[in-house]
Amino acid sequence: MINILFAARPERWTAYEQPLRDALQAAGITAHLAEEITPAEVDYIIYAPNSDLQDFTPYTRAKAVLNLWAGVERITDNKTLRIPLARMVDPGLTKGMVEWVTGHVLRYHLGMDAHIVNPAHEWHVTTPPLAHERNVVILGLGALGTACADALLGLGFRVTGWSRSPKNVKGVDCLHGDAGLSQALNRGEIVVTLLPDTPATTDIINAQTLAQMPRGAFLINPGRGPLIDDDALIAALDNGQLAHATLDVFRTEPLPQTDPYWAHPRVTVTPHIAAATRDKTASEQLVENIRRGEAGEPFINLVDRKLGY
Amino acid sequence: MINILFAARPERWTAYEQPLRDALQAAGITAHLAEEITPAEVDYIIYAPNSDLQDFTPYTRAKAVLNLWAGVERITDNKTLRIPLARMVDPGLTKGMVEWVTGHVLRYHLGMDAHIVNPAHEWHVTTPPLAHERNVVILGLGALGTACADALLGLGFRVTGWSRSPKNVKGVDCLHGDAGLSQALNRGEIVVTLLPDTPATTDIINAQTLAQMPRGAFLINPGRGPLIDDDALIAALDNGQLAHATLDVFRTEPLPQTDPYWAHPRVTVTPHIAAATRDKTASEQLVENIRRGEAGEPFINLVDRKLGY
Repeated sequence: MINILFAARPERWTAYEQPLRDALQAAGITAHLAEEITPAEVDYIIYAPNSDLQDFTPYTRAKAVLNLWAGVERITDNKTLRIPLARMVDPGLTKGMVEWVTGHVLRYHLGMDAHIVNPAHEWHVTTPPLAHERNVVILGLGALGTACADALLGLGFRVTGWSRSPKNVKGVDCLHGDAGLSQALNRGEIVVTLLPDTPATTDIINAQTLAQMPRGAFLINPGRGPLIDDDALIAALDNGQLAHATLDVFRTEPLPQTDPYWAHPRVTVTPHIAAATRDKTASEQLVENIRRGEAGEPFINLVDRKLGY
Repeated sequence: MINILFAARPERWTAYEQPLRDALQAAGITAHLAEEITPAEVDYIIYAPNSDLQDFTPYTRAKAVLNLWAGVERITDNKTLRIPLARMVDPGLTKGMVEWVTGHVLRYHLGMDAHIVNPAHEWHVTTPPLAHERNVVILGLGALGTACADALLGLGFRVTGWSRSPKNVKGVDCLHGDAGLSQALNRGEIVVTLLPDTPATTDIINAQTLAQMPRGAFLINPGRGPLIDDDALIAALDNGQLAHATLDVFRTEPLPQTDPYWAHPRVTVTPHIAAATRDKTASEQLVENIRRGEAGEPFINLVDRKLGY
């Protein structure tokens, strides 16, 4: 019998208890799963970074912290955490992200908004370029960026990917480093930001990088709020350097009613929905790592805390 | 030297002359291509159904009429046409259609409009189903319907296809005939109409078939205007049976300013852009049939005028 602590907000427990029990049973694992367990007896911690649990010192027997979120920036600095940390790589979350990104890329590619909101009832025929004539740039080639690139390639788009260190993704023109970033942004008719939130990526979309995009570019941010220097983005939208932005994540969420993004005519706000974790598939991932821990196999989706992701 | 008559509106000649000359040269065909040629000396007629040419009787030597449009309903009844008629199956047109349909399916799937137009600035988190939990139904499994089905399958959607006669498309649940139509519509959370306009398909979307869709369904019509009984559609939108419709084609185009579709809060009008022919790829298709005619090979994309498509 192993002890699995569920350390997250109560509403998460409501959502996850049954899918987790189902996944444990399907994996043939007998476990005590609860919201409260004596720390020294806990074997695994299923964890959300906004949990009350912030001091991992008493969890002397625990083999791993299994994050419920894809984002780990609120836990990587925790000095009391000395055991392996796995991020959530939920296939359901990835699928949802791919659908959201592909949908909004096509929305900009096709110029849909001019038809969805057309108060003058204008019958104005324009033929957009075909996908194979359109450059989409994805900043960040992790699991999510790569999955989005694959879907966009499948639809025929020209996809350029950028990452801090060199990567190789089939069909994607992969660039890296500072010089590669300028080169990528230069061709970014539609730019999608899917980078993790680290000191190196904070404000990566700023006045200088916005100016490197072609005039009239579109920005889609389903990644992290702090990737964007908000004042610089609004300035670029106001002066027409950017045509429009769709933002799913923000420095403060929910986005305050006073935030200028809400009323900006060139901004679409979506309420942090691009990367929704799906209970069932996420539970299967969490249990897979517990199975691996018990079988002495290496954990999957481990976080390198020095790099911060 | 062969004589190719270009019989379409003058603006088409402006767009097509150079791409056609390029395609002829690339195919190694020496030809006289012009808007006026003595009828008895014409070998091939590149044709738009709204051309002044309506009597084919004097074109005694012509081997084929090569339609510039995908739609042939305005020419299939022409009794003076006794030579092979080929429809336009432009790979560029097909790609554009796939992009337009995929974009609007994703738009409905993701509930984008609630974010694009959100005057109350509501941060309202809802998680849409994943594509593999969403039923998309395509009425019509010709070249366009099949290509759209492929793209939607690639994104993970459950795709049902319906056609008058039995068809088999990989990955698509193919239904046919009257019973199959009811069955298909029953599961149609998002219905895409890509049928040809024939006597059998006129008003196929009517009060009865609209009632067979699940309540709150979405309709996307990039096919033909007469597929829809407009009064029945507006009634279904008014009473909530349908949640929203995106219409690209209409009985009268441009859609008159007095048409109720323009101001309807549950309708998006797009100006017949889903199936735009692309000059370059279309010219290559036209020249391929001329090459085949000269080589004695069978023409591609021939129309069966008895069936009307």
